[in-house]
Amino acid sequence: MDINFINQTTLRVRYGETDQMGYVYYGNYAQYFEVGRVEAMREAGMSYRELEETGYMLPVVNLQVNYLLPAKYDDLVTVKTEIVSLKGARLLFQYEILKENSVLCNGETTLVFVNKLTMRPTPPPKNFIGLIESLNK
Amino acid sequence: MDINFINQTTLRVRYGETDQMGYVYYGNYAQYFEVGRVEAMREAGMSYRELEETGYMLPVVNLQVNYLLPAKYDDLVTVKTEIVSLKGARLLFQYEILKENSVLCNGETTLVFVNKLTMRPTPPPKNFIGLIESLNK
Amino acid sequence: MDINFINQTTLRVRYGETDQMGYVYYGNYAQYFEVGRVEAMREAGMSYRELEETGYMLPVVNLQVNYLLPAKYDDLVTVKTEIVSLKGARLLFQYEILKENSVLCNGETTLVFVNKLTMRPTPPPKNFIGLIESLNK
Amino acid sequence: MDINFINQTTLRVRYGETDQMGYVYYGNYAQYFEVGRVEAMREAGMSYRELEETGYMLPVVNLQVNYLLPAKYDDLVTVKTEIVSLKGARLLFQYEILKENSVLCNGETTLVFVNKLTMRPTPPPKNFIGLIESLNK
Repeated sequence: MDINFINQTTLRVRYGETDQMGYVYYGNYAQYFEVGRVEAMREAGMSYRELEETGYMLPVVNLQVNYLLPAKYDDLVTVKTEIVSLKGARLLFQYEILKENSVLCNGETTLVFVNKLTMRPTPPPKNFIGLIESLNK
Repeated sequence: MDINFINQTTLRVRYGETDQMGYVYYGNYAQYFEVGRVEAMREAGMSYRELEETGYMLPVVNLQVNYLLPAKYDDLVTVKTEIVSLKGARLLFQYEILKENSVLCNGETTLVFVNKLTMRPTPPPKNFIGLIESLNK
Repeated sequence: MDINFINQTTLRVRYGETDQMGYVYYGNYAQYFEVGRVEAMREAGMSYRELEETGYMLPVVNLQVNYLLPAKYDDLVTVKTEIVSLKGARLLFQYEILKENSVLCNGETTLVFVNKLTMRPTPPPKNFIGLIESLNK
Repeated sequence: MDINFINQTTLRVRYGETDQMGYVYYGNYAQYFEVGRVEAMREAGMSYRELEETGYMLPVVNLQVNYLLPAKYDDLVTVKTEIVSLKGARLLFQYEILKENSVLCNGETTLVFVNKLTMRPTPPPKNFIGLIESLNK
């Protein structure tokens, strides 16, 4: 099922996120993607926190990042997140990190709904599917 | 009860632990202290992992760090950890981070034994106290 | 010189900042303090970025943290930062991390102005002192 | 130019690297890859530190990670790193994170040699190419 729901959120680069090259350390973009993902889900009406509390986990199974231009300390960047699609238990997100009109970085993550007890992939809860269908209209 | 058990372990500074000043970010020393603490407990015969699995948590309630000289990328540093004392539920550790013979940083942490169910401070398990008494001889 | 300038800023706890205890990892509060510090300086009219660009560094020489209550994933917390005083090259900050009206954590950091070329402590630039005097009135 | 140089190094999962799911946070594998990369280069006779000191940077331009099984706190994992190939300024690394005989995670990174002054892609220094040719025999 295609979703194509887009959220934009901003964050400011922290000193501890830079490395001695003077740029944001490449591993820290995964955290920026997570911030975007959480805010996209929140705007869509899905709380990740609530999802966990009702017996689901949503681990990341694949991450891809392209680093185009460096983000620097104190930069105010925009994380543009698209909830792209749900296929079975798999939820695909795509991201762009922007500074003004430049794309610094893009990438994607695939997450899988997992039942906390059995630790096996599982379809998302019905209210989640309902939400996605309503976003989709 | 005084303990005065000392462990030394080494670690290599990772690129992602530096910041744009070219030094290890000040917040990352807490993780170095944790590495020292875990290895000191392991050498003393106490597995922190096991402790958690048997119903305890051991959160840090106080952290103090003095930064004397910077650690740099790829430095091989020694974490010297002393399990200083156990007073009631409170376990005191002191640390020095050394590069060759220079002290880069020193500090201490106080941890408290907590019962995972009640979330309240609790004396450590008996086998832990036994261990400490045996270290102490 | 006493300063007593107070700033409040908010941040949302990220998933990657928690640990398996389910709380924010104790080392990550140093980064929250840094966020508060930077925003306090920005509000006071001092850009840390600019300071670095004009030949200064401001490393942390002492950190103290008291952990009172845990912060959890997705919590929206307030970082209350006070620029307390400037004594010679030493700048003292104090912090409280609050969730609604509960103090989760408090602490302080001492930073020292350092000349980037000589790497020695140095009085802050004059415009910085001027700013502080004006805050102080 | 194909290289196919393989290094194995081990590391122990730190508490601060886990998240509230109880597993290593997905963003932290980038740091594990970096540890493997640095050790592979060290074993091959190339010091990344030296490379930076002689006027080069080697930023990551692409990262891909597949998460198969979770790594947990205190796990002793092996990072198996292959320096795969050098094509122009582009250096390709592939990784596996193993626990005993299970692959927890695999992935790759592409890095590009950059001249620190011009900030433009540049062929690697000659001694580096010489080294690679000698590894290759």
